[in-house]
Amino acid sequence: MQEAIAFKERFDRVLGRYLDRKIKEVRKTTSDPYVLEVVKHARVLLMAGGKRVRPFLAFLSYRAAGGKKDILEILVGLELFHAFALVHDDIMDRGLERHGVATTHRLHGDAQAILLGDLLFEWANAIIARTAGQPIFSHMVQEVILGQMLDVDAIRREKVSDEFIRDKMRLKTASYTFIRPLQFGAALAGKPKMFALYERFGLPLGLAFQIQDDLLDLTASSEKLGKSAFNDIREGQKTVFTQFVSQNTKYDLGKYKNKKLSEQDKKKIRKILEESGAIEYGSKMMEWYFEEAETAMRESGLPIEKRIPFLEMIAYIRGRAY
Amino acid sequence: MQEAIAFKERFDRVLGRYLDRKIKEVRKTTSDPYVLEVVKHARVLLMAGGKRVRPFLAFLSYRAAGGKKDILEILVGLELFHAFALVHDDIMDRGLERHGVATTHRLHGDAQAILLGDLLFEWANAIIARTAGQPIFSHMVQEVILGQMLDVDAIRREKVSDEFIRDKMRLKTASYTFIRPLQFGAALAGKPKMFALYERFGLPLGLAFQIQDDLLDLTASSEKLGKSAFNDIREGQKTVFTQFVSQNTKYDLGKYKNKKLSEQDKKKIRKILEESGAIEYGSKMMEWYFEEAETAMRESGLPIEKRIPFLEMIAYIRGRAY
Repeated sequence: MQEAIAFKERFDRVLGRYLDRKIKEVRKTTSDPYVLEVVKHARVLLMAGGKRVRPFLAFLSYRAAGGKKDILEILVGLELFHAFALVHDDIMDRGLERHGVATTHRLHGDAQAILLGDLLFEWANAIIARTAGQPIFSHMVQEVILGQMLDVDAIRREKVSDEFIRDKMRLKTASYTFIRPLQFGAALAGKPKMFALYERFGLPLGLAFQIQDDLLDLTASSEKLGKSAFNDIREGQKTVFTQFVSQNTKYDLGKYKNKKLSEQDKKKIRKILEESGAIEYGSKMMEWYFEEAETAMRESGLPIEKRIPFLEMIAYIRGRAY
Repeated sequence: MQEAIAFKERFDRVLGRYLDRKIKEVRKTTSDPYVLEVVKHARVLLMAGGKRVRPFLAFLSYRAAGGKKDILEILVGLELFHAFALVHDDIMDRGLERHGVATTHRLHGDAQAILLGDLLFEWANAIIARTAGQPIFSHMVQEVILGQMLDVDAIRREKVSDEFIRDKMRLKTASYTFIRPLQFGAALAGKPKMFALYERFGLPLGLAFQIQDDLLDLTASSEKLGKSAFNDIREGQKTVFTQFVSQNTKYDLGKYKNKKLSEQDKKKIRKILEESGAIEYGSKMMEWYFEEAETAMRESGLPIEKRIPFLEMIAYIRGRAY
């Protein structure tokens, strides 16, 4: 995806300028140096990394719908919202670093981190409020918050239903990262008739993406992943893989929750996952969802040249191994 | 203020119906009973109490500007935002109850409380996004968040500047509770030329209101206040009164921070405040601000019948002793 890289470069310049403007605005509202320091940390976090996936997908669908304007300033709203979600998520799961930068709550305490997140959410809203993308954005926000409520509570539960796992993947990943950003771009281009296609395409793609993410956590080495593997097991998170083990074997993966895993433990867990058929089951489900996303495009009625970026998107995600 | 009571009755019916609709919407998004329980707690909190001050002020200014439509559904957005702020504030200061109801973080933990607050903020945004009040709302949100950042940090600081205390009162009280709600109503009525008057009127009224609040915390008995007196002293909060003592006496009120105050302590603190002249100083400042608010109205050029509700507002606040 050469284009994604080129997009990120252009996007980051617009984002950086936006943040500079907002910091100036804050300085006019209060001259307190500490508050300014907290607010400036938002800039540090946002510029430290991030693939800008959601703005990029919105950009692709805007262009696919024939949009010709420069909408980067509006798309900044999606990335500000994402930064808000990460700042609040990091409080909840006590994250220490994000893109190699210390998290806000670690530097300034939970209260300031809650408030900095709230401020980023406000900035996102202020940008998006008076655009044609606002109603879609609003759906997206509610969905990802409800999805995160499920996610947070999953860890506390011993057992969950299949529907629970699907709801969580649908709201927190499929809607948030695929369906709604794609629809957002179409809304900006004034093409709401594309919404149904993006729902049909984005739902299976998002589910496949999440299952792949969960699979990589179980199978990739920690080096490739950039974070230690078996995170979900150690957190007691519920995925299609842990669900399969819980429903089809007598093993209790819950006993590894909040444990430091030895190499011995990891071998044992890998063995359970392989031999129970959980890995195969989840991998097949993932493949099936990838194919569903392809089918959605094939049957979309879109001319082939309009379908290409979306097929590339599937191929790109399918091929990722980190 | 008979009218405020009548307003609250009508407003609460609209608010209750709105919340019922949103709960249904959430039930369609996920059938998880626990998430639904968390979301329903927002309704319990919102309906348990609250004077609806901000919607009422916006309503008054809308009508004063000649607005004739039923805007209660839009004003619900202001109250949802207030509920968001309270849910997040309660996490920060570990509040146990709000209007006699258990706080969200106490029932469901900090993570769910952060998320429920976020959801209430989203609901507020969704209502206000496409109204003429949106830009004013956006200013208000940024101001109250920055004001709360100052407030949270005040407790940690030994000394603050006079400007710091004024910024905090201006952002967290004057803008949030007076200037912006009044401007919001004018914006909905399409009368932005009223903004300057409401700034000139709302700033001193808000400052007077906050000083009065701080004064009541020092002088009213805990029964009248409905909360134990000397909260600010025990929290290490910074007010015009503590600032006067710190700048003009050798006493250190900071030593009472996080202490359980004996009757002896309370007597001593009251004596310091009286004899240093802090009470007199703050009371005079408060009176001066009340008069500034009256002057703003007198010089507004508004016909007398349009000024009456605002003069009543001043009289009402001036007279409160709880």
